[in-house]
Amino acid sequence: MKYKLTLLASLVASFSSFAAPKNIIYMIGDGMGPAYTTAYRYYMDNPATKVVDPTVFDSILKGMAHTYPDDDTVVTDSAAGATALSTGTKSYNGAIAVDTAKHDLKTMLEIAKEHGKTTALVATSQINHATPASFAAHNVSRRNYNEIANDYIDNKINGKLAVDLMLGGGTDYFIREDRNIVAEFKQAGYQYEDDFAALENINSIPGLGLFAPVAFPAAIDANPDRLEKMTKKALSLLHKQNNKGFFVMIEGSQIDWCGHANDIACAMHEMHDFANAISVAKDYVDANPDTLLVITADHSTGGLTLGANGEYKWLRDVVKGVKASAPVITKALMNAEDLAATWPQYSSIPLTTAYLEQLTKAKVAGEKALNKAIRHIIDAESFTGWTTSGHTAIDVQVFAHGQHANDFVGSQNNTAIAEKLIGYIKQ
Amino acid sequence: MKYKLTLLASLVASFSSFAAPKNIIYMIGDGMGPAYTTAYRYYMDNPATKVVDPTVFDSILKGMAHTYPDDDTVVTDSAAGATALSTGTKSYNGAIAVDTAKHDLKTMLEIAKEHGKTTALVATSQINHATPASFAAHNVSRRNYNEIANDYIDNKINGKLAVDLMLGGGTDYFIREDRNIVAEFKQAGYQYEDDFAALENINSIPGLGLFAPVAFPAAIDANPDRLEKMTKKALSLLHKQNNKGFFVMIEGSQIDWCGHANDIACAMHEMHDFANAISVAKDYVDANPDTLLVITADHSTGGLTLGANGEYKWLRDVVKGVKASAPVITKALMNAEDLAATWPQYSSIPLTTAYLEQLTKAKVAGEKALNKAIRHIIDAESFTGWTTSGHTAIDVQVFAHGQHANDFVGSQNNTAIAEKLIGYIKQ
Ligand SMILES: [Zn+2]
Ligand SMILES: [Zn+2]
Repeated sequence: MKYKLTLLASLVASFSSFAAPKNIIYMIGDGMGPAYTTAYRYYMDNPATKVVDPTVFDSILKGMAHTYPDDDTVVTDSAAGATALSTGTKSYNGAIAVDTAKHDLKTMLEIAKEHGKTTALVATSQINHATPASFAAHNVSRRNYNEIANDYIDNKINGKLAVDLMLGGGTDYFIREDRNIVAEFKQAGYQYEDDFAALENINSIPGLGLFAPVAFPAAIDANPDRLEKMTKKALSLLHKQNNKGFFVMIEGSQIDWCGHANDIACAMHEMHDFANAISVAKDYVDANPDTLLVITADHSTGGLTLGANGEYKWLRDVVKGVKASAPVITKALMNAEDLAATWPQYSSIPLTTAYLEQLTKAKVAGEKALNKAIRHIIDAESFTGWTTSGHTAIDVQVFAHGQHANDFVGSQNNTAIAEKLIGYIKQ
Repeated sequence: MKYKLTLLASLVASFSSFAAPKNIIYMIGDGMGPAYTTAYRYYMDNPATKVVDPTVFDSILKGMAHTYPDDDTVVTDSAAGATALSTGTKSYNGAIAVDTAKHDLKTMLEIAKEHGKTTALVATSQINHATPASFAAHNVSRRNYNEIANDYIDNKINGKLAVDLMLGGGTDYFIREDRNIVAEFKQAGYQYEDDFAALENINSIPGLGLFAPVAFPAAIDANPDRLEKMTKKALSLLHKQNNKGFFVMIEGSQIDWCGHANDIACAMHEMHDFANAISVAKDYVDANPDTLLVITADHSTGGLTLGANGEYKWLRDVVKGVKASAPVITKALMNAEDLAATWPQYSSIPLTTAYLEQLTKAKVAGEKALNKAIRHIIDAESFTGWTTSGHTAIDVQVFAHGQHANDFVGSQNNTAIAEKLIGYIKQ
């Protein structure tokens, strides 16, 4: 009898794994290559324990993805990356949900809307930045920010607006001299909020929250938990919104930006906000097993390495001791009368005579040189390496949790992630 | 009826997955971080097809592993890495199967021997180098090469020699003035061969093949398929050796060395030999389903990145156009009367006036400067980045195929890989 019950349970498990998830939470860590998730584990580790504690990423790793775009560069940008991840079709760098012939590609958010699901986009960049844009707009170039913002209100799916909820930054693009898109969204019944402190005031869908003129400040400088909070808010609003479920794309937008800036402390704070947002999503899946959470990156950024210059170490305590992004430290030191007195407010690295000399000399050369000198000291002391201000081609990880999570085990093209998700949405 | 048969098949599949694999093939790509497997895919791609073809790695990716050693550096060396992978216990950098208290740790090869399995080690380095050493010797330091070689003959498991078959390099350590270990192995009944061209002559176990004074030359310079051939030979000898099965560790030793040298073409040729050896092992598993193949790396080396210096591209054709390792090109150019005439024999990069000037100037400075100048041109033209002559802490991939392969899905400590394998061996 016990044997038969086990058999039954196994059969039920088999059948339920065939059912498509009702809700899909798709999270993209922009620029989050495998060096970032590794660094974050060591960055977060409790030194009191001998074992290095696993992170939320470690708890749900399933596979890796190939990020190359549809040209011969091998290295993708965020637009081509997001287009592959949202439509299942690779395109050229700069493409926003259009193919190499510049024809519109249908996105999974649009397909979700067609199938009656509630749709949402969440980002810490402007909400019309490349990654979220590739889910709800179509443009030959990611740089056409105004046209992309226009698309968010002009792009109709069966007569309805494509995105039911948007949380991010971007008032500069949505309230312009030539067009007030916020007013149009209000007219269409969207609850609107532009003060992040009043996030809780958004209490229904459709809704629009634009909490910065362009992007949020870096997490290390302000609102370290803005993505976690927006994720909570979005999921609470989407929950039971309708019986056909929801699709939401949540982007940790600025991991990439810290990578471009080769700013390791900045990157770790963005990773922390993204990781906490993932924990919120994971808890949601545990409470709502008809949900699938999939997390990946579009590419890696900066050529980050843990260890550099021949030394066999990476010193996370040096990174933990940094208290602001490089631009903020730079401004503070530019304005400081006494470099030696100001430095300790921003870094735990002892300011040696040599370092003081480097900073003093760089300050004379100007803000750009000083910013570079600051990062050079932090990198040298922590043994952090970088090879580029751009992207790299290394495979990225794929994490999944909930219904159909095991479909993402193994090595896959980034387009295959989109194909699988679109397959569930169409079921 | 059809339904019942499916059910039965599923039950049989379930039960057989609980049985421990009879044979274990454990392959370690020394220094093979995720940038190497990614680079190899683009390096191998057929440009005639639009899609980038998956590699043998892509076909069996299962998870990733955390490589940190038992100290606060986060960055492991190959000895601590191999000790974790062979014993399930993390130790200090330099440790050969001893713990931080310098006590011997039992290795999975020794446990396999205790359980009656045939055992083997294959490497393209000297066979007493850190990685293979950590499976069959015990020493407080990887640098004690002679003591480690001694261990291979002195280390007895229930009165028997621990390793039944060894293929690699290292006559300098095995035939010494103070001790002739090769003679001792012959005395113990081992078939011996020191000419790689005569590899086929080894036709029984026990056997010892030492095909170089220290290590094989780099694959790009000679015998590009030496690991593939040794893998074929080892598996053909181990096959049906005894009914308790076998354990073999096969190392792609020199991926790491090309990484230390920041020599991208060298690294890709080592990857190719390792990949072909994996294909041989994978085919063996397909023909012998009671076998488990597990592949991982001990760490990544060099801080390799695909893309560098702000450019969004990695040009594998530049790498494909390199015909020798940097030391070999250096020697050729040092001996060349006409740099411009000699260069095209080794690289497809057009020698601009600027490059010719750089090489000419470097040649005057000497071999080290010239080697660096050569690599600088190849890296600049291919957009390959490096941050260190040492190792980095990025997680490495875990690949598996065959019996129990799915046990390796997800993110895991490197010690967990050893624990699982030892668990099967003890069953
Ligand atoms: Zn970017
Ligand atoms: Zn090494």
